[in-house]
Amino acid sequence: MATYGLIEYQQASGEVRVVYDDIMQTRKTDRVNNFWKAIAHDPALLQRSWEGVKAVMAPGALNPLVKELIYVAVSATNQCAYCIASHTASARKAGMTPEMFAELMAVVGMANQTNRLASGYQVEIDDAFQV
Amino acid sequence: MATYGLIEYQQASGEVRVVYDDIMQTRKTDRVNNFWKAIAHDPALLQRSWEGVKAVMAPGALNPLVKELIYVAVSATNQCAYCIASHTASARKAGMTPEMFAELMAVVGMANQTNRLASGYQVEIDDAFQV
Amino acid sequence: MATYGLIEYQQASGEVRVVYDDIMQTRKTDRVNNFWKAIAHDPALLQRSWEGVKAVMAPGALNPLVKELIYVAVSATNQCAYCIASHTASARKAGMTPEMFAELMAVVGMANQTNRLASGYQVEIDDAFQV
Amino acid sequence: MATYGLIEYQQASGEVRVVYDDIMQTRKTDRVNNFWKAIAHDPALLQRSWEGVKAVMAPGALNPLVKELIYVAVSATNQCAYCIASHTASARKAGMTPEMFAELMAVVGMANQTNRLASGYQVEIDDAFQV
Amino acid sequence: MATYGLIEYQQASGEVRVVYDDIMQTRKTDRVNNFWKAIAHDPALLQRSWEGVKAVMAPGALNPLVKELIYVAVSATNQCAYCIASHTASARKAGMTPEMFAELMAVVGMANQTNRLASGYQVEIDDAFQV
Amino acid sequence: MATYGLIEYQQASGEVRVVYDDIMQTRKTDRVNNFWKAIAHDPALLQRSWEGVKAVMAPGALNPLVKELIYVAVSATNQCAYCIASHTASARKAGMTPEMFAELMAVVGMANQTNRLASGYQVEIDDAFQV
Repeated sequence: MATYGLIEYQQASGEVRVVYDDIMQTRKTDRVNNFWKAIAHDPALLQRSWEGVKAVMAPGALNPLVKELIYVAVSATNQCAYCIASHTASARKAGMTPEMFAELMAVVGMANQTNRLASGYQVEIDDAFQV
Repeated sequence: MATYGLIEYQQASGEVRVVYDDIMQTRKTDRVNNFWKAIAHDPALLQRSWEGVKAVMAPGALNPLVKELIYVAVSATNQCAYCIASHTASARKAGMTPEMFAELMAVVGMANQTNRLASGYQVEIDDAFQV
Repeated sequence: MATYGLIEYQQASGEVRVVYDDIMQTRKTDRVNNFWKAIAHDPALLQRSWEGVKAVMAPGALNPLVKELIYVAVSATNQCAYCIASHTASARKAGMTPEMFAELMAVVGMANQTNRLASGYQVEIDDAFQV
Repeated sequence: MATYGLIEYQQASGEVRVVYDDIMQTRKTDRVNNFWKAIAHDPALLQRSWEGVKAVMAPGALNPLVKELIYVAVSATNQCAYCIASHTASARKAGMTPEMFAELMAVVGMANQTNRLASGYQVEIDDAFQV
Repeated sequence: MATYGLIEYQQASGEVRVVYDDIMQTRKTDRVNNFWKAIAHDPALLQRSWEGVKAVMAPGALNPLVKELIYVAVSATNQCAYCIASHTASARKAGMTPEMFAELMAVVGMANQTNRLASGYQVEIDDAFQV
Repeated sequence: MATYGLIEYQQASGEVRVVYDDIMQTRKTDRVNNFWKAIAHDPALLQRSWEGVKAVMAPGALNPLVKELIYVAVSATNQCAYCIASHTASARKAGMTPEMFAELMAVVGMANQTNRLASGYQVEIDDAFQV
C-alpha cells in the first residue's frame, strides 16, 4: 500500500474531489489511478501535478500517442515499474499497437546501450553538434 | 579525445570502411560521427551496433522522427551529453521543430518527476494495469 | 529471499553478532533489518557498512532527521524499493511528519524534472556558478 | 550554448519578462540563471516550472536550506553537472556551511552505496516496513 | 505477466523456435528464460538481441565468468530486479562463488558511492587522465 | 575546480597527509588524484573512503584487474565522466588491454540494453531464479 494509503473519492476533501473529477472527465473514465490517490495527501502537489500532466500531454505539435510513447521510454529507462504499467496502458488506450510498442522498446534498448558506449569510450562531441 | 582516439577513414581497415561507407550512404552525408570513429577500435561492436541502429531507426510502425524523439528522451533521462547533442541534431534533421522539441522536453521532465513520486510514495500498481 | 538468505542472530558468527548488537543498541530496537542480515554473508562489508552508516547518520552539522530525508531523496531518485521503505520508516521514527514527507517528495520530483530539462536543453553552467 | 540559445531580458517577450522579474524579485538578485533563459523558448514551461519551483522551495514544514540540500542530493545522484553547480551555489547562499556540505555528500555517497547493496543482494522488504 | 504475455515453444513461429533452439543448445539447458519469451513478440528484436548476447558473452579476452560479473554489476547499478536475478543465477552457473559475489557487491557499492562524491564535489579530471 | 578547491599535500593537515602517504605508497605512485584532494575537506570521509577503497580493491577471490573492470562498468552506467577517466586509467595500469576494454564495453552496452527491455516488457522473474 502507498506510504500513507490511498485517498478514495468518498474520503476526499472538496479540493481533492475537484481534481479527481477533472481527471475522470478529461480522461473519459470513471476511475482515478492509484498514483493520484497516493499523492492526494498533498493537495497542492496533486493539483499542480495534474495541471502539469494535463497541459503537457494535451495535443500540440506532438500528438498524445507520441507523448505516451515518450513517457513509456522515460519510465522504462528509469525502471519505474508503476509508471511502465500505467503508461503502457495509457499508450494502448491512445492507439499504440503491438508493432509500435515493439519498435518503441527496440529504440529504448538501443539508446540505453549507445548512451553507455558514448560515455564509456569518452567520445567528445563533434564540432558539428556543438550548439 | 576518446579512450583510444578516433579512427579516421584514411587509417581504417577494410571492414571498418565498409561500415563507414554504409553509414554515409544511409544517412546521405559525407561525415561519420565521432561515436562510430571511437568504437571502431572494436570492428565487431561497430558493425553490430550500426546494423542494430540502422534496423531500429528505419521507418516502420513509428516514423524516423518519432524514433529520434524517443532517442533524445532516453538520452536526456540518462544525462548523456554526447547522445543529447548528436540525437538532437539528428531529430532536427529529421524534421523536429522547436515546438516539438519543447513538448518533448516537457514530457521528459514531467515523466522524470512522476516516476519518482510514484516510487517515493510507494504506489502499488492498479489492478487495472496488471498485465 | 535475499541471494544467499538472511543470517539470523542465532546462526550468526561472533563477529557478526557484535555488529548486530551495536545496531540494536545504537538504534534502541530489538530487531535488525533484513538489509544487514543479507549482507552479513560478507562480515567485512557488514562491519564497514555499519560503521560508515553509524558515522554518517550521527548528529553533526545536520541533524539525523535531515539526514534521513536526504537518504529517502536519494533512494526515491534511484527507485530502490527496499531503501525507500526502510528509510521512510526511519525518517518517521526520527520525527518526519506527513507534511515534511510531502514537501520532501515535492522537492525530489521537481529536482528530477529540472535535472533533465537542464541536460536536455544543454544548458551551460553560468560563470557565476563556476567554482 | 543551450540548444536554441539563451533568451536575454532585452529580447524576451512580455510574458517571459514577467517570469524573469518574479525570479529576480523572489530571489533578491539582479540576474536570471541560464536555466531559465534556456527554457524560455517554451514560455508555458518556463512559467509552469518557475511557479512549481517557487511553491516547492518556499518555507514550509521544511526550511529552504534543507530543501536546497535535498535538491543537491538528487542532482548529485543523477550526475547533473549544471544542477549540482547551481544548487550548490543556492545552498551556500541559503546558509549551507562547508561542514553541512561535507555531511550532505557523505549521506549521498552512503545512500547510493547501500541502494545497490540492497538491490544486488535482492533483499526483501521487512514486514515491519510494509506500508 | 509480461506486457503481451510469454510465447511458449509450442505457440512459437518457426523463426522464433530457431532462436529458442539455439539458446537451449548454446546454454546446454532445456529451458528458455522468460526474458526471451517476452521479447519474442518482436522476432527481429529477439534474433538481434540473442545474436548480440551470444557474441558479447562468448569467451574472448575476458572469460564468461568475468562477463557475467560485469552484467550483474550493471544490473545492480540500474536496480533491474529481473536482470539481477537472472544474471546472478548465470554467474553462479559460470562458477561465481559466494566470496566472488561478496567482492563484486563490495566494488559495486563503493563505485556507486565514489561516483556521486566525484560529481557532487565537482572534481575536475586530472591532466594525467585526459585521453 | 572542485567545490571547495583541491587540498595539496603542502597545505594538508597531518591526518590528511597520513592518508595521502598511504595512497601513494599503496599505489606505488608519487601523485594523489584530484578526487582525494577534493574530498580532503572532510578528513573523516577521506579516511573512511580510502580505507574502504583499499579494502575493496585488494586482491581476493577476484583479482584487482577484474575489480577495476567492474568499477569502470558501474561508472559508465552512471555516466560519471571523472570516474570513467580515472578508473579506465587504473584498469590500464592493472593490465587491461584494448581487447579487454572492448569486451567490457560490449557487455556494459548489452546489459544496459537488456535491463530496459526486461523492465519495459514487464518480464516477471522466472521461478528458477527465485532465491
